[in-house]
Amino acid sequence: MYIKKQRLLTPGPTPLYPPALHAMMASDMHHRTEDFRKVYRACLADLKEVMGTSNDVLMFAASGTGAMDATVSNLFSRGDKVVVCVAGKFGERWADIVKAYGLDANVITVPYGQAVQPEQVEAALKAEPGVKGVFVQASETSTGAAHNVEAMGRAVAKTDAIFVVDAITGLGTMPLDIDQWGLDVVIGGSQKAFMIPPGLAFMSVSPKAWKLGESGNLPHYYFNLKKEKKSGDAGESSWTPATSLILALGEALKYVKSIGMANLVKNAEMLAHATRLAAGKLGLELFSAASPGSSVTAITAPKGIDSGVIVKEFRSRFGSIIANGQGSMKGQIFRIAHLGYFDFADLFAMLAGLEIILNANGHTVQYGAGVAAAQEVYAQATSPVLK
Amino acid sequence: MYIKKQRLLTPGPTPLYPPALHAMMASDMHHRTEDFRKVYRACLADLKEVMGTSNDVLMFAASGTGAMDATVSNLFSRGDKVVVCVAGKFGERWADIVKAYGLDANVITVPYGQAVQPEQVEAALKAEPGVKGVFVQASETSTGAAHNVEAMGRAVAKTDAIFVVDAITGLGTMPLDIDQWGLDVVIGGSQKAFMIPPGLAFMSVSPKAWKLGESGNLPHYYFNLKKEKKSGDAGESSWTPATSLILALGEALKYVKSIGMANLVKNAEMLAHATRLAAGKLGLELFSAASPGSSVTAITAPKGIDSGVIVKEFRSRFGSIIANGQGSMKGQIFRIAHLGYFDFADLFAMLAGLEIILNANGHTVQYGAGVAAAQEVYAQATSPVLK
Repeated sequence: MYIKKQRLLTPGPTPLYPPALHAMMASDMHHRTEDFRKVYRACLADLKEVMGTSNDVLMFAASGTGAMDATVSNLFSRGDKVVVCVAGKFGERWADIVKAYGLDANVITVPYGQAVQPEQVEAALKAEPGVKGVFVQASETSTGAAHNVEAMGRAVAKTDAIFVVDAITGLGTMPLDIDQWGLDVVIGGSQKAFMIPPGLAFMSVSPKAWKLGESGNLPHYYFNLKKEKKSGDAGESSWTPATSLILALGEALKYVKSIGMANLVKNAEMLAHATRLAAGKLGLELFSAASPGSSVTAITAPKGIDSGVIVKEFRSRFGSIIANGQGSMKGQIFRIAHLGYFDFADLFAMLAGLEIILNANGHTVQYGAGVAAAQEVYAQATSPVLK
Repeated sequence: MYIKKQRLLTPGPTPLYPPALHAMMASDMHHRTEDFRKVYRACLADLKEVMGTSNDVLMFAASGTGAMDATVSNLFSRGDKVVVCVAGKFGERWADIVKAYGLDANVITVPYGQAVQPEQVEAALKAEPGVKGVFVQASETSTGAAHNVEAMGRAVAKTDAIFVVDAITGLGTMPLDIDQWGLDVVIGGSQKAFMIPPGLAFMSVSPKAWKLGESGNLPHYYFNLKKEKKSGDAGESSWTPATSLILALGEALKYVKSIGMANLVKNAEMLAHATRLAAGKLGLELFSAASPGSSVTAITAPKGIDSGVIVKEFRSRFGSIIANGQGSMKGQIFRIAHLGYFDFADLFAMLAGLEIILNANGHTVQYGAGVAAAQEVYAQATSPVLK
């Protein structure tokens, strides 16, 4: 029985930024006051700034799935033809949502671990010119694969369809030029790169998306983009906001701005790069080798080891919570996250722990070998010449 | 500019236990109520339990130095002959305090990095049979050296002197059998192994110490051991207590009890053992090689590197605050702490960082070599056979 800190190292919820947590202690305020409006307005403005868009940004007391639901129910109509890219569990969620609202979906499915190719989207758009929307995950959290949303966005922009991007784990972990690439709807969540607990979803909405929404005929009430836009302009939310989370978000956004969104992305990219190199040194195979994203790296468990054992031992030996595979991938892969308040020291510790667990379970590695690969990456990045 | 978590890795203040911090949020309570008395009583009872003593335990709103001062001003008299063991900065503090109160001190001084030997104390007691007290640090935080308080205690017990032990960093990092070894006064502080912020001092007082105190003639007011004992018996403090810290302590003590004090000590000993092995692998010299303690390991900076550079680079490259040498040791040693809410994952990360810093400053090491030494220690300790 030793000290084992409970560390939350999953791709959401992610490690929390302490000053943001502390800010939640100021929640004894009323949300229909100028004090709170100031915070709410700052959050919307800062979100817009870090997302780097001139589009409108809205916020909901909801999980990211709430904003996904809102997008479909507010912008589309029953029977609308849409293209849905499915490369994992969250792609399947898009398919489920559009089905729930009665849209007519062309679902492009690739095996878990792979990414839908922009050419597939282009072909689908060519085959059916009446498509109203294309749905994708920027980063498919369940497999660690990233989609080329730039190429997809530029293709969709040439059509009348809007491009709807679930960037819940993509925001802050990969470059996303919302305005230039034609990302009409971009969805984010509080418990990812923004380093605060779950409960807030936000989304940017382009003029093209608003236009489509004008003809939308699906029922909705809580999630009302137009109403929320009007409320937001007045520094308020339509319904009672999750005040504590908004106070936390305000603090976290100050931190994100102080680092710079581009650097936050670079941080995730470096962590992911270092993790891939370390995995190679430890004789491990990457699950999404062809299109690895930087929000999370999925690693195939070595032959004969259930990935659940690795997850369990991270908990029992180190108090750390890491992610198993989801759905059919459970037991086969484990996932190392690179987002939230997570730094290279966390990665060093995690790799050292992984090495111990691998050795203890019959996959022999040299202690420190994976750590050394990550050290090389960080040492170069922080060398006085470069920093 | 990357994410760099601010990590507090000094031998006090130490890394904080989050549930203890959260408990501070309940401080909107009055200290002269049964609600608060319940917490205060539990703290005193739990402290007594984890210190493993039948002696009285008192608590003060003060830093550890306050309890050191209280010991002298309450138990001794002007001109009393005492023996003071000085092996570093905190030994010097004992010498300063007894001087401030006009005691007649025989100061046994050894060079920084060494420990006063029990034989030296025995000799001093033999040379002067009228000695009223012997003062020592269980663990000399400034150098990382530990004193053999068991042997010293048994020697002092044979005389009329009381044995006063500053165990501020010793408690929770080394075995201390207060009752069996004759440790008449044992002093602790909140910001050490107890994982909460600074501001609370506590001490155990033996019947022999109380007896000496009866004839004490030094002036004191705030620090009044007798009064505090009476107050404590009633579940209160004599003056306004630091309620938030006591709420935190209550939570931290529950955690310490759940681990077990013996395991907490073993945790520090293992961390220290692993750190010494890692230092060896990295070609570093231990500063207190002869009597290394487990609260903190002082390491001599490699030739040509100012230890201040190592401390500075831990801050700039990793956001971590580690300890430089103190006083004349500044620039020559750096100190890796093993107490507070600090686990092996923290050590892995710290060693990985140290390796990067050493390499960047001309002391070439193999990445992962020090980490591997620590991994070996932890892997063995947590192997299913042993755990």
